[in-house]
Amino acid sequence: MRTRRYTLSASCPDQTGIIARVAGFIAQHGGWILESRFHADNGNGDLAGRYFMRMEVKADSLPFHLVELRERFSPLAESLSMTWRISDSAVRRRVVIVVSKQEHCLYDLLSRWQSRELDVEIPCVISNHETFRAFVEWHGIAFHHVPVSADNKTAAYAEVQRIFDEVRGDTMVLARFMQILPADLCEHYAGQIINIHHSFLPSFVGARPYHQAYERGVKLIGATCHYVTPELDQGPIIEQDVIRIDHSDAIDDMMRYGKDIEKAVLARGLRYHLEDRVLVHANKTVVFR
Amino acid sequence: MRTRRYTLSASCPDQTGIIARVAGFIAQHGGWILESRFHADNGNGDLAGRYFMRMEVKADSLPFHLVELRERFSPLAESLSMTWRISDSAVRRRVVIVVSKQEHCLYDLLSRWQSRELDVEIPCVISNHETFRAFVEWHGIAFHHVPVSADNKTAAYAEVQRIFDEVRGDTMVLARFMQILPADLCEHYAGQIINIHHSFLPSFVGARPYHQAYERGVKLIGATCHYVTPELDQGPIIEQDVIRIDHSDAIDDMMRYGKDIEKAVLARGLRYHLEDRVLVHANKTVVFR
Amino acid sequence: MRTRRYTLSASCPDQTGIIARVAGFIAQHGGWILESRFHADNGNGDLAGRYFMRMEVKADSLPFHLVELRERFSPLAESLSMTWRISDSAVRRRVVIVVSKQEHCLYDLLSRWQSRELDVEIPCVISNHETFRAFVEWHGIAFHHVPVSADNKTAAYAEVQRIFDEVRGDTMVLARFMQILPADLCEHYAGQIINIHHSFLPSFVGARPYHQAYERGVKLIGATCHYVTPELDQGPIIEQDVIRIDHSDAIDDMMRYGKDIEKAVLARGLRYHLEDRVLVHANKTVVFR
Amino acid sequence: MRTRRYTLSASCPDQTGIIARVAGFIAQHGGWILESRFHADNGNGDLAGRYFMRMEVKADSLPFHLVELRERFSPLAESLSMTWRISDSAVRRRVVIVVSKQEHCLYDLLSRWQSRELDVEIPCVISNHETFRAFVEWHGIAFHHVPVSADNKTAAYAEVQRIFDEVRGDTMVLARFMQILPADLCEHYAGQIINIHHSFLPSFVGARPYHQAYERGVKLIGATCHYVTPELDQGPIIEQDVIRIDHSDAIDDMMRYGKDIEKAVLARGLRYHLEDRVLVHANKTVVFR
Repeated sequence: MRTRRYTLSASCPDQTGIIARVAGFIAQHGGWILESRFHADNGNGDLAGRYFMRMEVKADSLPFHLVELRERFSPLAESLSMTWRISDSAVRRRVVIVVSKQEHCLYDLLSRWQSRELDVEIPCVISNHETFRAFVEWHGIAFHHVPVSADNKTAAYAEVQRIFDEVRGDTMVLARFMQILPADLCEHYAGQIINIHHSFLPSFVGARPYHQAYERGVKLIGATCHYVTPELDQGPIIEQDVIRIDHSDAIDDMMRYGKDIEKAVLARGLRYHLEDRVLVHANKTVVFR
Repeated sequence: MRTRRYTLSASCPDQTGIIARVAGFIAQHGGWILESRFHADNGNGDLAGRYFMRMEVKADSLPFHLVELRERFSPLAESLSMTWRISDSAVRRRVVIVVSKQEHCLYDLLSRWQSRELDVEIPCVISNHETFRAFVEWHGIAFHHVPVSADNKTAAYAEVQRIFDEVRGDTMVLARFMQILPADLCEHYAGQIINIHHSFLPSFVGARPYHQAYERGVKLIGATCHYVTPELDQGPIIEQDVIRIDHSDAIDDMMRYGKDIEKAVLARGLRYHLEDRVLVHANKTVVFR
Repeated sequence: MRTRRYTLSASCPDQTGIIARVAGFIAQHGGWILESRFHADNGNGDLAGRYFMRMEVKADSLPFHLVELRERFSPLAESLSMTWRISDSAVRRRVVIVVSKQEHCLYDLLSRWQSRELDVEIPCVISNHETFRAFVEWHGIAFHHVPVSADNKTAAYAEVQRIFDEVRGDTMVLARFMQILPADLCEHYAGQIINIHHSFLPSFVGARPYHQAYERGVKLIGATCHYVTPELDQGPIIEQDVIRIDHSDAIDDMMRYGKDIEKAVLARGLRYHLEDRVLVHANKTVVFR
Repeated sequence: MRTRRYTLSASCPDQTGIIARVAGFIAQHGGWILESRFHADNGNGDLAGRYFMRMEVKADSLPFHLVELRERFSPLAESLSMTWRISDSAVRRRVVIVVSKQEHCLYDLLSRWQSRELDVEIPCVISNHETFRAFVEWHGIAFHHVPVSADNKTAAYAEVQRIFDEVRGDTMVLARFMQILPADLCEHYAGQIINIHHSFLPSFVGARPYHQAYERGVKLIGATCHYVTPELDQGPIIEQDVIRIDHSDAIDDMMRYGKDIEKAVLARGLRYHLEDRVLVHANKTVVFR
């Protein structure tokens, strides 16, 4: 079994002495650091002058529990103007999967969940189709059918939100959910909704990216895992990958190859997110893989 | 030494019996086929219903020479409404390299030329800067400095064209030439000018693609080798590739990684072109690697 | 729905006129060729002087059915000393999956089968553990538990063979079956048993390849899909791929990354096999992807 | 211009408080940390229980120079039983390139040196052939021809060593030097000699790896950059990469593709080494890319 650990992920304005103060705080209480990553953004872009960190501390090396750890860390964080969180590996995240009619990401996620590689609670799967009810329920997971049509969008997404809240979801995964979420939902759960887009963004935004890729004659196709924001396919990118195609591949072949990339990229991106390896600032991510 | 060969590359409307007729023609004269590739486009796009082929025939297996081969093949080609060419591996292509101030593609191409991997004539290198004169001349290759400014564009490109024609160039390679060619030049040498663009097109068209990629926070950067057309960065794509980056890579790092991809993609794309492996139709390519 | 097609895959000693004669035969009967690939091996190795081909012909473009097609083609094949087969896309292959306790390849294959991407019959799954009985049976597929121990090997593999024959299996897929098949079984079904090995062969043959890779400190790990022969991990390689790791990846991480490569490589290799894209000669494969 | 920086790279037995103490030391003197990486090896292998770190500190943020920095850091390092070094980015490394008759790595390294991407001194190139004298000398770099034959090995490598010492070389790069160095030379310069091997080690150790790869029928070929040790091709691996091939690639094609991988992998591995990103322990590397 994996060692229980507390994970601090944080960002703050850069200055001298940040590592010394944070690592000093942990050392002073005898904390054993298992993993640590730091990044100072020295560029000219949106992250310029910002400092990012992630530390995993062995839980039983500290003489107090999570609540007290947070309390004791809080003044230091404040003095550094930090945005921060500390999570406990013993508290499993609650992931709600939202899906339409395509099976590949759903099977892939449940396969990982089944083997405990994806070590989370999946309180339910939500879908706008009945397609996967029996398959999901066979896994002992609740299945909610929420039809979405042009007429009922507001009610439908209110229902999605009600279910997500009721099951106390932490993360919503759009596992090839072929619908656009309303802006208010995206904003309400900013940083909590993860989508897999079937192109190498920013190429081929919007619908039918494989058709667009086919028309343009690109030699590689890709997939992008990103946080959902109100601007379609514009959210912070967590992970991407590509696969080679050629002229002999019809759109159907591209879709088939694409599925393999989509599920791999979604699984990686989701894991980074669940392990607090992704820090978002402006519209960009720092990913401490 | 590599066997001398005639290479037929062709496309025509699809129908039954094309392979039989073309291969039959070759067999009838005792021709030994070394390589052959065929592609029928069965999609709905711009290439739909078109047939593409490429065949390499051992030159000395045929009882006649190139001129007669072309004459004899011509009626068959006509009956199939073919667009076709037959080239002779003993006739080395004449490649003119056009470059600005970045060295990586130039060194890479000359390295390949030096070892005969790139088995072509390079009658000259043209540049809008003097930077590489001595390096190029050391290789025994003529160097032409043609300054380009806002004021002299017409004259400058007339000079480029004059030089290219004078040395009887077959192919012009823009090896990170940081200027936009005039539309009439692109049209005059359609299918003969190859560019390397420093992004994974169609993402980040135009200037400073690494800056655009940095801003968007993509997790892979790429390069694209394409034929130059009057529409900037819109020409038929020959080859593409990508490399992984992460948040720790500043724009300078991206440029450094990008150079490695650029030169590799340009070298591959150029080879495909020189070996008549690229067939262009509409704005797409069939590449028989 | 995909067009019904007959697929010829064949190899023979190289000589002039092979394409002409085979394509001529098809054209003479009005056959419409959808895809065709040819390869003459001009090297010095085991395949030297051998010619390989694969052609897909639209079934309803021919004026006769499969049996007659085979009869009519037979004399030509004989005159070329061909090893050949013609298959019919309307006859679905019968694939038996053999698995131990790891879920990733099984879920992946059933996901593809469920969506008809993997368009085969799966008459049964055989396992030396009960682990996946309910999951498999939920899919409507029979599950056979055949325990294998040091004492009962002969009887156990006789039972595997009996089941495979009884369900008229065409292909046996070892989807991370953690046992070594007896030599006589490998020989009896030569070219019909496909294995996924969890290393980039020929590195790390045998047991615990991730441990071996970890010890050696390699920077990429891989997987290999190959035909099973009596010599352990020495069979003809169908497909391989790799993924990057680094010093921060423990053996557990490598196993986790490895699973993603294993299932992708197995799925690709199996598809090539089922579509008659793999031609084996000596201990090597020609794969017309 | 890049900020001048001091780079500390170190390893020591793991214990609590290492980061706090090292970062505390730097903070106490006002040091500005530009980059920092830490790795605790928690596995069961050769690196188990060892802690690795690398920190870049802005040189002018510290109130003393390199010599004093080393003196002041020394007691802390000793108390942690550290193996450590601190280097100064203003002191350019002295890299000696050793080459035979293949041009690709040499051109590639000189291209990077020419553009200052590879920001080192190259006091000389040593070769067992005269092939590249003029090319190297054109760059203003001294060229030493040291013929190596079965008879003169001892004298020849004594001469190589003499030259390397005379020019005060820091790093020796075997840029496709097709000879095996004597064991005593490898030991004398342990951790200073970098080789590029033309296979994905540990596959295809020794001579003619492309021939071996061709015989085995692998679907990817690779290259490995490693430190040279007395055991042939067994040294600690710094970097590796692969490229896809298929049945249509003859050994010549594999060599051609391989060159592109070789030069890219060598350049990356060399850069990691020169920037003190590679920490060696037992026969493995930690590479803080």
